[in-house]
Amino acid sequence: AAMAGCGWARAVRGLLLDVSGVLYDSGADGGVPIAGSVEAVRRIKASGLKLQLCTNETQATRESFVRKLRAMGFDVSVAEVTAPAPAACRLLRERGLRPHLLVHDDLVAEFAEVDRTNPNCVVLGDAAENFTYANLNEAFRLLIGMEKPVLISLGKGRYYKETDGLKLDVGAYMKALEYACDIQAEVVGKPAKTFFESALAELGVPPEQAIMIGDDIENDVGGAQQCGMRALQVRTGKYRPSDENHPKVKPDAYVNNLAEAVDIILQQL
Amino acid sequence: AAMAGCGWARAVRGLLLDVSGVLYDSGADGGVPIAGSVEAVRRIKASGLKLQLCTNETQATRESFVRKLRAMGFDVSVAEVTAPAPAACRLLRERGLRPHLLVHDDLVAEFAEVDRTNPNCVVLGDAAENFTYANLNEAFRLLIGMEKPVLISLGKGRYYKETDGLKLDVGAYMKALEYACDIQAEVVGKPAKTFFESALAELGVPPEQAIMIGDDIENDVGGAQQCGMRALQVRTGKYRPSDENHPKVKPDAYVNNLAEAVDIILQQL
Repeated sequence: AAMAGCGWARAVRGLLLDVSGVLYDSGADGGVPIAGSVEAVRRIKASGLKLQLCTNETQATRESFVRKLRAMGFDVSVAEVTAPAPAACRLLRERGLRPHLLVHDDLVAEFAEVDRTNPNCVVLGDAAENFTYANLNEAFRLLIGMEKPVLISLGKGRYYKETDGLKLDVGAYMKALEYACDIQAEVVGKPAKTFFESALAELGVPPEQAIMIGDDIENDVGGAQQCGMRALQVRTGKYRPSDENHPKVKPDAYVNNLAEAVDIILQQL
Repeated sequence: AAMAGCGWARAVRGLLLDVSGVLYDSGADGGVPIAGSVEAVRRIKASGLKLQLCTNETQATRESFVRKLRAMGFDVSVAEVTAPAPAACRLLRERGLRPHLLVHDDLVAEFAEVDRTNPNCVVLGDAAENFTYANLNEAFRLLIGMEKPVLISLGKGRYYKETDGLKLDVGAYMKALEYACDIQAEVVGKPAKTFFESALAELGVPPEQAIMIGDDIENDVGGAQQCGMRALQVRTGKYRPSDENHPKVKPDAYVNNLAEAVDIILQQL
């Protein structure tokens, strides 16, 4: 019933999955898997469908992120993760940009190959405890001192939920720097079209044969649809009933959780 | 030459002066007077013109702010200072609001008479070192938990200059909270029209007989003009040559500094 009229799912050859709020709920304790999700990932793989995780996670390298997911029981590898930091590294190389990083300590290793001397742009991630007054002033001074300030933001989320409460996400700090410098940041990560295109390239499937499954109505569902994909919203993670009245974005279907999505998709094949 | 064609200055009966960047340059050391400004304030008073300081300063009570200015040699009194915190206190009383304060430690005393139990709004000032990740998350959680979040911002400046460099101003943090909560802050302080009107009431002079002198093209010059005043921009403080090509705001004249402004105004009388 949730996906009645979803005959289009028969054409599917690959799935893009958001991670936080779909596979697990995050928190200071590392997080807990969402019921049925470990098994759902296993069933996707057994079915022969391709799978790629498409995340805006910027508090850890992909390696340590995958280590955490595997410890929870998810059968995933680093190659199956599309995340903003590697996408930012490609963009920096293509444009000869040398970043000043305002990111989480655990993300810095993703930029190991990048020249960071004499910075000519700022890369902003979810820096968490590194969002100090001094660090924000430093990033601001570098930007305002550039002839044409370049601010690259790893996502533009408003906030997220951890087990100990809501936290301001990178988007809030991006807006602070945008306003102070009177500039527009370039967003790498969902909902940027180029980011979904990278994820599809890594999945090896064209958009009309891929489905995005996420909990974020704008960044997951809206972004994927803009890219020509079908997109399902799960009723887990940051999902709120009011999402179902979103003024601009309408998912191709709602599902209670990842396990239900996989049930229905596999029935169509 | 700077004020050729400024015959209108003959009608002037009172001056509103911005403080930081006009009277002195601020800094961790307390700041230093701008050359000629101490004498310029003395000459304004000797001329019989009325004078009111119109500042967005929120890092100190008016009492300690005036103490600092007097120590630099400025002949000014507390009654001659219009500042955002007292204006915010009036607004809070009128609307029965109980604020959570995210402000500088030295400003808290301005809110001594205000009930702050069980907050139903957030008041944001230039909190400087109090702009920590934890304090910003706390203010955010209070706002997002309110049925109708009320954020009152003491100014909306982008940044300011201290002797050790540029600092993000309250407006940047206001934008972060606005974006995260999807709300609009209410601004108390320049460039709010009601704030200039309070300053004029305290000056005791109607807008057409008052001149605003400031270094901030938008908050000082633009705001005062919106209120029916003439406004001069000084080329001190945060002034940048690019201000002279501002797309929206054109001062009634440029002057090199306060001393020059006073020279020219007094010649017209």
